[in-house]
Amino acid sequence: MFSLADVQARLASLSVSGNNIISHAATASPEEYKNAVSSSSAPASTAHLKTLVFKPKTAKTAKPVPVVIIARDETDTVTGALGKKLDIKEMRLAAPELLQEFFNATKDDVSPLSITSSNASQITLVIDSALASSSDSFALKAGSSDKTMLLKGTDIAKYLESSGAKAHLIDFAELKKDAPAPIAKANASSGKAASAPSATSGSISADGNARAKAADSAKIADAELIGITIRKDGDFSEWYQQVLRKGDMIDWYDVSGCYILKPWSYHVWQCIQTFFDGEIKKLGVENCYFPMFVSSDVLEREKDHIEGFAPEVAWVTRAGKSDLEKPIAIRPTSETVMYPYYSKWIHSHRDLPLKLNQWNSVVRWEFKHPQPFLRTREFLWQEGHTAFLTKEEATVEVHQILALYAKVYTDLLALPVVPGVKSEKEKFAGGLFTTTVEGFIPTTGRGIQGGTSHCLGQNFSKMFDISVEDPRADASKRGTREGRAYVWQNSWGLSTRTIGVMVMVHGDNKGLVMPPRVSSIQVVIVAVGINVKTTDAQRKEIYDACEKLEAELKRVGVRARYDDRDNYTPAYKFNDWELRGVPIRLEIGPQDLAKQSTLSARRDTGAKAAIPLATVTEAIPQLLETIHHDMYAKAEQVYRERRRVVTKWEDFTVNLNQKCHVIIPWCEVEECEDAIKERSARVADTDEPEDERAPSMGAKSLCIPLDQSPYPDIAGLKCPQCGSDAKRWTMFGRSY
Amino acid sequence: MFSLADVQARLASLSVSGNNIISHAATASPEEYKNAVSSSSAPASTAHLKTLVFKPKTAKTAKPVPVVIIARDETDTVTGALGKKLDIKEMRLAAPELLQEFFNATKDDVSPLSITSSNASQITLVIDSALASSSDSFALKAGSSDKTMLLKGTDIAKYLESSGAKAHLIDFAELKKDAPAPIAKANASSGKAASAPSATSGSISADGNARAKAADSAKIADAELIGITIRKDGDFSEWYQQVLRKGDMIDWYDVSGCYILKPWSYHVWQCIQTFFDGEIKKLGVENCYFPMFVSSDVLEREKDHIEGFAPEVAWVTRAGKSDLEKPIAIRPTSETVMYPYYSKWIHSHRDLPLKLNQWNSVVRWEFKHPQPFLRTREFLWQEGHTAFLTKEEATVEVHQILALYAKVYTDLLALPVVPGVKSEKEKFAGGLFTTTVEGFIPTTGRGIQGGTSHCLGQNFSKMFDISVEDPRADASKRGTREGRAYVWQNSWGLSTRTIGVMVMVHGDNKGLVMPPRVSSIQVVIVAVGINVKTTDAQRKEIYDACEKLEAELKRVGVRARYDDRDNYTPAYKFNDWELRGVPIRLEIGPQDLAKQSTLSARRDTGAKAAIPLATVTEAIPQLLETIHHDMYAKAEQVYRERRRVVTKWEDFTVNLNQKCHVIIPWCEVEECEDAIKERSARVADTDEPEDERAPSMGAKSLCIPLDQSPYPDIAGLKCPQCGSDAKRWTMFGRSY
Repeated sequence: MFSLADVQARLASLSVSGNNIISHAATASPEEYKNAVSSSSAPASTAHLKTLVFKPKTAKTAKPVPVVIIARDETDTVTGALGKKLDIKEMRLAAPELLQEFFNATKDDVSPLSITSSNASQITLVIDSALASSSDSFALKAGSSDKTMLLKGTDIAKYLESSGAKAHLIDFAELKKDAPAPIAKANASSGKAASAPSATSGSISADGNARAKAADSAKIADAELIGITIRKDGDFSEWYQQVLRKGDMIDWYDVSGCYILKPWSYHVWQCIQTFFDGEIKKLGVENCYFPMFVSSDVLEREKDHIEGFAPEVAWVTRAGKSDLEKPIAIRPTSETVMYPYYSKWIHSHRDLPLKLNQWNSVVRWEFKHPQPFLRTREFLWQEGHTAFLTKEEATVEVHQILALYAKVYTDLLALPVVPGVKSEKEKFAGGLFTTTVEGFIPTTGRGIQGGTSHCLGQNFSKMFDISVEDPRADASKRGTREGRAYVWQNSWGLSTRTIGVMVMVHGDNKGLVMPPRVSSIQVVIVAVGINVKTTDAQRKEIYDACEKLEAELKRVGVRARYDDRDNYTPAYKFNDWELRGVPIRLEIGPQDLAKQSTLSARRDTGAKAAIPLATVTEAIPQLLETIHHDMYAKAEQVYRERRRVVTKWEDFTVNLNQKCHVIIPWCEVEECEDAIKERSARVADTDEPEDERAPSMGAKSLCIPLDQSPYPDIAGLKCPQCGSDAKRWTMFGRSY
Repeated sequence: MFSLADVQARLASLSVSGNNIISHAATASPEEYKNAVSSSSAPASTAHLKTLVFKPKTAKTAKPVPVVIIARDETDTVTGALGKKLDIKEMRLAAPELLQEFFNATKDDVSPLSITSSNASQITLVIDSALASSSDSFALKAGSSDKTMLLKGTDIAKYLESSGAKAHLIDFAELKKDAPAPIAKANASSGKAASAPSATSGSISADGNARAKAADSAKIADAELIGITIRKDGDFSEWYQQVLRKGDMIDWYDVSGCYILKPWSYHVWQCIQTFFDGEIKKLGVENCYFPMFVSSDVLEREKDHIEGFAPEVAWVTRAGKSDLEKPIAIRPTSETVMYPYYSKWIHSHRDLPLKLNQWNSVVRWEFKHPQPFLRTREFLWQEGHTAFLTKEEATVEVHQILALYAKVYTDLLALPVVPGVKSEKEKFAGGLFTTTVEGFIPTTGRGIQGGTSHCLGQNFSKMFDISVEDPRADASKRGTREGRAYVWQNSWGLSTRTIGVMVMVHGDNKGLVMPPRVSSIQVVIVAVGINVKTTDAQRKEIYDACEKLEAELKRVGVRARYDDRDNYTPAYKFNDWELRGVPIRLEIGPQDLAKQSTLSARRDTGAKAAIPLATVTEAIPQLLETIHHDMYAKAEQVYRERRRVVTKWEDFTVNLNQKCHVIIPWCEVEECEDAIKERSARVADTDEPEDERAPSMGAKSLCIPLDQSPYPDIAGLKCPQCGSDAKRWTMFGRSY
């Protein structure tokens, strides 16, 4: 970020002390940060500020001059009015790349201290007068996410002025009076900090520089405190994080990139485990457990393979107070861990097939911005590792497993996927070919790899000498090198990423929408219509009916819960369970009882219908199935509509920018894939108004769909990018 | 061990090069070591030697003079004859403590290089002339378990002579001719290396100094190569390791202290998981997953608690090529990991009880000798962490969980346990009280802690501020500190150690004996009686009958396997499945078919009986149940007989030395427990002939049995150690 020593030296030169530094838990979001500061030794009166970086519209050939607004956290930085006042056009929240370039920081790290003498001349600085004139003590990140410097507002202003930046002192309260009407109606009801949410955006997609307007309208009107305050199609990143936390799926953790899986999400994982574990056992796969530790020798045995993982390997170098003689790695995946033993265990073709699976966690210490479920430093998964005598047997299994992965998505999570084969560029390093199920996040138009089943070929078996006397070899070759066969291997893995895809696709502005088959609670029962006039006898009758309903549903295998908390109103309970996405809510009140029915409300559609109490044990299981199928059908339709067949290059990026994937007749040449990525990125990077919200990321090949039948005959078609003969229809898109 | 530089300097002074050093995987047993050397860059012709250390009978007041025998690995070091020749009485394999004292090494590490000028004068050295005269190149551990020095036999002799030790050059082949008759008949048939097994002993129990005679007779006559070659009551440690490996439970791993759980053992763990997970869910416990990483701040929050774990914590300090700013620990247990979040999640008494459980692995980097399942650096377990409003509720749950742990042992693993409360000294650090189920290993007479359920009281909740507005408080105290209540917490854990206890108790000289309810295969079917005269039609008839039998048994839920491998004889298959401990073997041959029956053989008793094929689907499930109950009853009887009620101190150690636990009327004073440990250790340490095989380890309190009813009224009884008033009957014993 910046050198704390430099900052302190500059402060000292201004006769300001920069030594009031407090330590706290490391944090990964502004909210976490505030919590950390408030539970640290900082005074309770400590105030917060925000540092927002915008990029004005800039000619393509010119270098942009970022606008940095430093304001009290609660100040409404009316950017429209500000732009008008300072004559800055189309201010948009800056992309991560720009923040990196100018401030060597992320949007969460950037702070007044990031303004140094070396970047001050390249920016426009806007200082909130309510901050600059304040004698409050403000919290400033002090060069790492677990240290905070406390500085008075007046001292911050001093510091900023000393940087030499062109600074505007703005009275935002005054400015607001002149502000134009808000862009979206949703914003109108919000008196405060319309831009605050956008200050935490930019972490999921790379389209931050196009999100300023969207962020303005992202806030949901009248959202209750416990509810989701950000619209899914407004600020998707912030929405995702809110939904996960308020929906009780995860909690942040004080080691960056790690998250706590709470019971509400862990239950989904257990459902996936139960299904998949049962299915692979039918295929003869057995479970085992290899240690999480790997010696460096073993880890580095297969060079191509490890190259992809080496930068992310976590190393244990110390135990207690002793340094280990040799550092020991934590497994990033287990190929090189397991295969030396395969070599030892497989002596004869009669030892084949060997089919082992592990349910474990692996560690990949990525330095990119972490994202719950999608990119975490430790994640839960299963990894299967199998060995066969022939390529044919191995290939059959690759596809059996892929079909099971597809079923996890379609049959459990109500999510569509496209099964296919990865291009050479995108396949598993060191393997022969990779198959994948590709998912799709409609809101961002980005693809997501849902699970991969690799045929490793004989690369690893040759490396680790996993071979058998070949029963098919000529008798004359028995006992010779030529008479031996290297085994054919597969590996396949599915992780808790599944849960992230589920949340991103199904969730809505009210929170999670849980697919019924994996929801920890499928039906919640709430007593309603009770008021001061309700007699004790009536109350009891309603409560008893609720209890009875719960018991009956449980009896037929429905995961039902009667919410009998007496300290919450029905409205609160409705919100609470909607946040968590419980598929069906059943209400029972005096009128329902009179009709011997219960009012059902579907979480996915909001549809309400009375159900006779006499038929609930049949109706509810049916309704849960209907919801599953409806959720799947809805997501499937969107995905299908967003897969566009494209045969001309000029249509390629246009479709990407409409948040679609494109299916092209492709040449399957690796250089062509590189060119596609570069060209689709470059086009998006211009500041053309027609696709201003498009991310700058280039497209890569997602998969070559196994099912080519929906597409025209490929014969005679040319690759739209390079003009070579096309081989197969291939799906390209922006992706996670 | 010793300084490699010193060794090399001494070798150089003898004009011998000590630079021929090769690297290989670190190893934890002699067998592993040999494998590692053979797969290293060492020439295939590399020979192995053994270094055996014995302690002769020594007057109690005198310092012993160890006898060190250095011999080719395959030399039969006839110790009886050797003792006679050198006039050394009652040579017994030295205890670990002696090895440590004289050579700063374990039995696996000690090598000719351990003989230095500083210890040479204190020992008697015996050199195998077949080694000393050899020009073969021998492998010597070079100061760490992953480095080996190669030295010629003649150079080793030179080196040893230069140490200044009193050395005897012995022609063991010659000596053997004069050897007295072997002590046990079992030894008679063994032409080679009767003492080799004992070279790997001493790691489970500390009774190494008494094991020489036992080791001599430990080898099993006629054991096939695939079978167990060591008697359980001979060399228990070696037996255990053989049974685990040959029974296909584990494989060694190249990171010391870590083991691979193969499907045969992992299945047992999955059975335990399925049972326990189902039961705790009935109690309202939910599963979750916390990250494996812990920041040092969090880890060290609770001082008393962490003190016990700190020396064993593994630290990640590097990711890829970057050093982490702060080292991050791998959880040794999760109290301090989880409780900061409990503080965040628990706001109101309505959030109670909070009951969470995790199935995960934890890491304790112990430096003691590792032991599969019993002491491993990573192990699988579950850890439950719950919070309640009242002590009463917490106490109820402590015992509910303890009862489930007992059921895992009794109902799944067919093992008896004694449920009880730990003494103050033995309770969980930082907790209020600890309950335990205590198991027993009859062969060594040592107790083993089988699972613990702790009431943590309010210690952690005060530390982490987990408190709620107390609904029981006076209205006047609402909103004040006094009106708040700290929650009462429990934590409870059960690990894969369960599997080790199962193997140690039930296993026999033929290998594993699997309790039917957790055995991955319960019934194996083998076709027998087929010879050259058998017609194809007869063969088919037998094979078909076997297949049908398998299918019928599977249909009624029996985990049956027809072993149709055509490359093994029935005898081989019998051995193979006996090693793995499959509860029932069913044979079908021509005679069985003629009678429409199958011959069953029980693994636990060896009993054989014909079962009509028409009734197998009833008879086999019944027989499996019978076997479970018989196995339990047998183990229970032994454990019961070995719990001796003792009221006089003079009976205490006598009973311990008879491999029993003692139940004494105890004062429950911590100092008294220390005294008991010391006194029971000291007594065992004398060289009195009547208890020569007793371990030197002192006894500790294992538990205060919950069920005090089998014992006399405690009123008026005195503690046999200190004479104070006894409080409760308490079980003491040597333990793991």
